[in-house]
Amino acid sequence: MPIITLTTDFGTKDYFAAAVKGAIYSDLGENANIVDISHSIQPFHINQGAYVLKNAYPYFPTGTIHIIGIDSELDDSNAHIAAQIRGHYFIGADNGIISILTNEVKADKLVQLNINSDTDCDTFSTKDIFVKAASHLARGGTMEVIGKPITELKEVKGLNPTVTDNKYIKGSVIYIDHFGNLVTNITKKQYREVGKTRDFEILLPRNYRINKLNRTYNETKKEGEKLALFNSAGHLEIAIYKSDGYNIGGAASLLGIKVQDPITIEFKP
Amino acid sequence: MPIITLTTDFGTKDYFAAAVKGAIYSDLGENANIVDISHSIQPFHINQGAYVLKNAYPYFPTGTIHIIGIDSELDDSNAHIAAQIRGHYFIGADNGIISILTNEVKADKLVQLNINSDTDCDTFSTKDIFVKAASHLARGGTMEVIGKPITELKEVKGLNPTVTDNKYIKGSVIYIDHFGNLVTNITKKQYREVGKTRDFEILLPRNYRINKLNRTYNETKKEGEKLALFNSAGHLEIAIYKSDGYNIGGAASLLGIKVQDPITIEFKP
Amino acid sequence: MPIITLTTDFGTKDYFAAAVKGAIYSDLGENANIVDISHSIQPFHINQGAYVLKNAYPYFPTGTIHIIGIDSELDDSNAHIAAQIRGHYFIGADNGIISILTNEVKADKLVQLNINSDTDCDTFSTKDIFVKAASHLARGGTMEVIGKPITELKEVKGLNPTVTDNKYIKGSVIYIDHFGNLVTNITKKQYREVGKTRDFEILLPRNYRINKLNRTYNETKKEGEKLALFNSAGHLEIAIYKSDGYNIGGAASLLGIKVQDPITIEFKP
Repeated sequence: MPIITLTTDFGTKDYFAAAVKGAIYSDLGENANIVDISHSIQPFHINQGAYVLKNAYPYFPTGTIHIIGIDSELDDSNAHIAAQIRGHYFIGADNGIISILTNEVKADKLVQLNINSDTDCDTFSTKDIFVKAASHLARGGTMEVIGKPITELKEVKGLNPTVTDNKYIKGSVIYIDHFGNLVTNITKKQYREVGKTRDFEILLPRNYRINKLNRTYNETKKEGEKLALFNSAGHLEIAIYKSDGYNIGGAASLLGIKVQDPITIEFKP
Repeated sequence: MPIITLTTDFGTKDYFAAAVKGAIYSDLGENANIVDISHSIQPFHINQGAYVLKNAYPYFPTGTIHIIGIDSELDDSNAHIAAQIRGHYFIGADNGIISILTNEVKADKLVQLNINSDTDCDTFSTKDIFVKAASHLARGGTMEVIGKPITELKEVKGLNPTVTDNKYIKGSVIYIDHFGNLVTNITKKQYREVGKTRDFEILLPRNYRINKLNRTYNETKKEGEKLALFNSAGHLEIAIYKSDGYNIGGAASLLGIKVQDPITIEFKP
Repeated sequence: MPIITLTTDFGTKDYFAAAVKGAIYSDLGENANIVDISHSIQPFHINQGAYVLKNAYPYFPTGTIHIIGIDSELDDSNAHIAAQIRGHYFIGADNGIISILTNEVKADKLVQLNINSDTDCDTFSTKDIFVKAASHLARGGTMEVIGKPITELKEVKGLNPTVTDNKYIKGSVIYIDHFGNLVTNITKKQYREVGKTRDFEILLPRNYRINKLNRTYNETKKEGEKLALFNSAGHLEIAIYKSDGYNIGGAASLLGIKVQDPITIEFKP
């Protein structure tokens, strides 16, 4: 049976994630395959949820069904949808998260769900609606049965870097990870296309500067030194060697940089 | 094979939960079905554990076996028991948690466990005793084999709201969830029975007042506004629109209200 | 199929652990058995990771494959290895963690991995290298295929207690658990060998003294009282009755004691 993954802002202390899993097992039996992507997305932060799921889902087998329990209450501006994109299924609210994570507003198949809840509760769509949709798909059912075709996902303009004078890539911090590292929206692909093989300097807030790119975190060998590299998601990341985000702090706290702060690559002539 | 769930105060950084899972796999083989309800119950807080498991267990298939690893050291006043209630099995200490979560002191079947630990350690009953009981039940064994019948669960008086003059439901905050929302012990059932269709005002500490009930969190549209609704567990809950319990804070921190503080519904004539 | 466990410092908010799981499912299919030991090891702390995995792995069935994603970037001083020890497989960096957790530098079988990553990324060895090794072993493949034999694990001198005059066992705090309890490197075995049946006093920093050993946490009955016992891992542990590491605090915060602080048992004549 296909895997069903969960990406939510439910946290891990409450009953929410467990109730969702129980409902799936009740629908599909004990052979259901449920995998947690994360329940620690910051509440309502669809950009953060998109970044996490975007970098996890491609490693799962095609046919995997991804339930997204972030800001998922149904209302007039927040329809419930199921989308098939690159062989994966995504079920969630049409709040922009699916278009951000797949970089697509066109899905191979896309429906607005017409599933009714069996409960007198409108606040737990993930359990009452999305689980039913996922179970249906996991049993091999078609999308047409659970919704009516629509044409486009809600587009949310991601915060994309801008390129100026073929000299600057102006991006920003989009995420701070578990280690306190600063993840930017500048990708390795864009860096190569714009920069070719030119020398460069990375400009951070507070006049911090970095003029080389590491291949690995560890090739820097001085505790507390700042470094830049393209992380395993292909995004430019600023880190502090051996910082841990906790006792020692991370780049975010040590450099005083936060989400949305600007990060610029300046290429030399 | 039936699912075995785990509800503990072990946290997730230590070896405790993993050792329990390893022991189950060693007993039952790789086809064991283990599901985490939560390992983030506040240590020793049986009320919190009861609230979480109470709202998760009914979604699991009947026949599911629920291990409760909270305040479970064996002593004269804290026997180890297994209970069959509404088609589910519960294994834990007789510290009141099972009677709180099922609202029952009578179980369909109830035994005091007579299983001995194989180890020279009296502090890890969940691994050394409860896993054996759960594995026995998962293999289809009977409760009589692992314990001697007893008649009643320990009753712990839950903090139930009181009704005064058919006008007031006086309850209190029993739980603060991941979003910082305040969960009370006042249920939708009680609200309907007492209030019928009368107008009402919800009285919070510090003279805060709310005079409507939302259907959903999102129907309030003003950031930072307080709201009340019956949550997916059927309990009256006080929330702040789009608060997150973290950066922005939640109802608990923003309103300065904590567990055990009084929350009253006053019905109008 | 054998179980594959994960012990990492990835945390639970990022995509790291989920990407690893997705890669395993893609390699092995939906019947892969993946169990989280912990993703909350403090970044780079191999001693902490060793303590956690050491006390979890023996409960798993023999044949289980343990992936260790802590400080695992490949470099000249940090080779990637796979070791077979006591019927379990360990895959990780040769940074000392495996020798600490197994108390062995000799493995039954030991290879340096010769697996190449398929990606243009050198920072995510756990996904790009260790998963391939684990999948190979899970399918019943031999270690010789994925690496070249080597003879010894890197030895890291653990912090072992010293015995003086047959009178003192001088140890130290090696770990603070979820409850705030202080775990020392003094084991029950050593206590028995040195102390026999003599009376003793446990000497803590700040002149705190304890002169009895509990069998259980609960046999102390006074809130806030400090106690000592051998924990379920067989290590001497200092705790505060009913402390929780959070609201009330734990032994660490209440006594002002931290990792590496000395703890001594003094035996009486």
